[in-house]
Amino acid sequence: MKEYEDLLDFSKITSTLNSVNSLLTWDQETFMPKGAIDVRSSQVALISQMVHERRTDKQFLQKLEKLIDIDTGEIKAKDLNPVQQKALTLWRQDYLKQTKLPASFVKEFSETTSMATQAWAKARKENDFSAFAPTLQKIVQLNQKQADILGYEDHPYDALMDLYEPEMTIKKIEPLFSSLEKGLSKLVKKLNAADPIDDAFLYENYDHDKQIRFGNLVLSELKIDRNHMRLDESNHPFSIAMHPDDSRITTRIIPNNFMSNIYSVLHEVGHGLYEMFLPKQYFGSPVCEALSLGIHESQSRFWETRIGKSEGFWIYFYPLLQDTFPKELSNVSFEKFFRATNAVKPNLIRVESDEVSYCLHILLRFDIEKELIAGTMQVKDIPKVWNEKMQELMGICPQTDSDGCLQDIHWSCGSMGYFPTYALGNLYASQFFLGFEKEYPDWRKRLSQGDLEFVKGFLKQNIHQHGRMLTQDELAKKVSGSSLTEKPYLDYLEAKYHKIYRI
Amino acid sequence: MKEYEDLLDFSKITSTLNSVNSLLTWDQETFMPKGAIDVRSSQVALISQMVHERRTDKQFLQKLEKLIDIDTGEIKAKDLNPVQQKALTLWRQDYLKQTKLPASFVKEFSETTSMATQAWAKARKENDFSAFAPTLQKIVQLNQKQADILGYEDHPYDALMDLYEPEMTIKKIEPLFSSLEKGLSKLVKKLNAADPIDDAFLYENYDHDKQIRFGNLVLSELKIDRNHMRLDESNHPFSIAMHPDDSRITTRIIPNNFMSNIYSVLHEVGHGLYEMFLPKQYFGSPVCEALSLGIHESQSRFWETRIGKSEGFWIYFYPLLQDTFPKELSNVSFEKFFRATNAVKPNLIRVESDEVSYCLHILLRFDIEKELIAGTMQVKDIPKVWNEKMQELMGICPQTDSDGCLQDIHWSCGSMGYFPTYALGNLYASQFFLGFEKEYPDWRKRLSQGDLEFVKGFLKQNIHQHGRMLTQDELAKKVSGSSLTEKPYLDYLEAKYHKIYRI
Repeated sequence: MKEYEDLLDFSKITSTLNSVNSLLTWDQETFMPKGAIDVRSSQVALISQMVHERRTDKQFLQKLEKLIDIDTGEIKAKDLNPVQQKALTLWRQDYLKQTKLPASFVKEFSETTSMATQAWAKARKENDFSAFAPTLQKIVQLNQKQADILGYEDHPYDALMDLYEPEMTIKKIEPLFSSLEKGLSKLVKKLNAADPIDDAFLYENYDHDKQIRFGNLVLSELKIDRNHMRLDESNHPFSIAMHPDDSRITTRIIPNNFMSNIYSVLHEVGHGLYEMFLPKQYFGSPVCEALSLGIHESQSRFWETRIGKSEGFWIYFYPLLQDTFPKELSNVSFEKFFRATNAVKPNLIRVESDEVSYCLHILLRFDIEKELIAGTMQVKDIPKVWNEKMQELMGICPQTDSDGCLQDIHWSCGSMGYFPTYALGNLYASQFFLGFEKEYPDWRKRLSQGDLEFVKGFLKQNIHQHGRMLTQDELAKKVSGSSLTEKPYLDYLEAKYHKIYRI
Repeated sequence: MKEYEDLLDFSKITSTLNSVNSLLTWDQETFMPKGAIDVRSSQVALISQMVHERRTDKQFLQKLEKLIDIDTGEIKAKDLNPVQQKALTLWRQDYLKQTKLPASFVKEFSETTSMATQAWAKARKENDFSAFAPTLQKIVQLNQKQADILGYEDHPYDALMDLYEPEMTIKKIEPLFSSLEKGLSKLVKKLNAADPIDDAFLYENYDHDKQIRFGNLVLSELKIDRNHMRLDESNHPFSIAMHPDDSRITTRIIPNNFMSNIYSVLHEVGHGLYEMFLPKQYFGSPVCEALSLGIHESQSRFWETRIGKSEGFWIYFYPLLQDTFPKELSNVSFEKFFRATNAVKPNLIRVESDEVSYCLHILLRFDIEKELIAGTMQVKDIPKVWNEKMQELMGICPQTDSDGCLQDIHWSCGSMGYFPTYALGNLYASQFFLGFEKEYPDWRKRLSQGDLEFVKGFLKQNIHQHGRMLTQDELAKKVSGSSLTEKPYLDYLEAKYHKIYRI
């Protein structure tokens, strides 16, 4: 159909431009000479602006209007196939979101946040929350304004979450999060009271090049197609894709925390495989895009935790790890290693925290954000609330705001409503695992034999290849038989950690 | 001045877009996963098209017309400074060139050449010139047509050379080339008849990583600012710059020809420094661009040959090279090494040939191209002419066309008029060296002490920082006191190689 092809061609150019921006970003974080940062910023700004202009272009609207009613969402072109019809619905949805925010607001927002990241970095360095508070106040106000412009039914925070996790609302998420909080907090405290696990040997000095080699060995065992994916080093591990054919991940090497590299590789490979196995035949259409940040995170956590922290995985990989680090590990038994790499310890810092505590860090931020946006909490009260809540949830309290409410960059970037997707990722991973376990009841045995193909195949088949064809809820039901709840995640943690801690 | 700023802003965006294309190209040749080639092609095609559209945009013309008369070149805005006035003249010149070729011609040209590179690769592999001949015939015709569209005074080939070496004509170049041919051919034959130099030890197996390390050592000794330049490996060494702040070079590691890496690094660093020291305060204006391909090549050859193949350079660097390869070189005297790395041997392949023969390879191609474009020679006669001329110039004759007239990719890319710039680069390098030697009569001694700063400083000061402010002839006169001739180059080779060959 000519009109559809015409629209798709227009959109393909936008997607291609956007993919160019991904390369600019990847290069900036990997190989770009440091002194090129100003040039890079202007390159990224230019391409971003072009992408935004095309997404909100009148020409695009005209092409779209021929095929779908913009006001009602009714599809005019009845002879299109379901994928094309879904694409139209998504294009319309995205267009309406993209055009809601006036240019003046976008400008004010980006000016505020570009100053804010510097203000935050300084305040964090100097442990001076009050210096950052006025800027954060402004960011909260802008987010409130943004919520008003975008619109919502029940709670302004819904409008913000929707930017990262479409259709997610306070009403839907609070029951999950409140039960999660109860369950996790109880488990964390129980584990903290149990006999501590000796994991000191994991924090000795491990050779940089051997760490790199082991990261690559993991990719080889995963049979990752290096013609379409590469692994590099960067300051912070990340994953980015230009296109399903060009998916790139990075890791970070910390000499005295070598497991961090391995879990980073597994985490990023989870993201990378998702991008790699999106339905590339639809590139340029929104169907060939990731569904939401929560689903994206579910893929990284599936690999990092459900596979990568499982006994079966290490039964196969631990001998390989010992081969790589014979001096450090040949005298460490499998059991000792496996318990150590799953040790749960109170940690003030989100990004360094263990699998059990992790979501508690998120829930704390979620609570604060929600109250700030609703106007039921003041910015100046954040440190107090943070510290009390930390004490309540995990039984620890930061000595400084730098280790507390100033630890994350997200707020200074203007992102509010983003944090919940980190927790949702864990919940979705365990939700999907129900389906996985049902299809492969012998998954533990297979992993212990080094078979990883069936994991890749399952996720490709059941998650990746759908792109945005299904909603998150439809996907959860299709894969696991029911909508998302916190239960599978809590069940998994309870069972696993009771066994590990022998309680 | 508002109108000028407005024009510059427009042009800056074009330059920034073009710089994005440079990154796409760099990545493609260095780190891109091989399977991403189709996506990459569409990214490059898109950005290239956008750059071309902006350069020929009516909006651009309107902005330009406010400041300079497009027909006459007379500058309307009299209160601009000389740099701005020069920029206007260049913008107009470039615009007129860019808009001359009709879109239909550009399309036909690019379609023909995109098939031609494959046809050439196949013909070369199968040593079957006749299979490539019809395609080459078409390319010659298209180049003839291009010359007609672009226009010329005396010879159609002038219009083609002008694309790479502005203002260069057959009338200017032939006296240089004909004297060069005579001088070089005589010298090559004399050297070939002399006692051969033993250089077998240069073609042993040299460790890959040590080669890489030595390449980086050269950059360190050159005190290259790594904040603005990086060195990587690729299949073919090249240099590319996004901006003076982001200049990147590559090298190639050949295990059994380790000097190739060192000369590649020096060659590409010469290109890279040129880009790095262009007057970046004028980025976006044509003044902040390289003057011509001949001048660009002069910078690479200056470093590779005039500095990098000189005795002074190796007096300092040879001990470092011996430190890197003690097993291979500790028993090789400086004299033996220096003579070996300057050995002159007949070689059928241009890219593998020595400093003395190199230009003869170019002159042969120049003669053939010129006759083809003038219509005084037929494509079918190329192999015969090639082989006879090779015999005449260097006393050797290829056994196959793959080692003869099919060896270079250039014609299949549609490039005719490009080869002469390789020879011009050598001539300009020696022309500039006159000025360099006058300013630093003690250059040999300085090099032998490891001082390279003054070389960088001289080239930056006298060549790089001018960008396109001067013409090639103005630059030659300013630096050397006179217009370009072949004499300084021939004098240099005569003196150097008589000494090395003790004749």
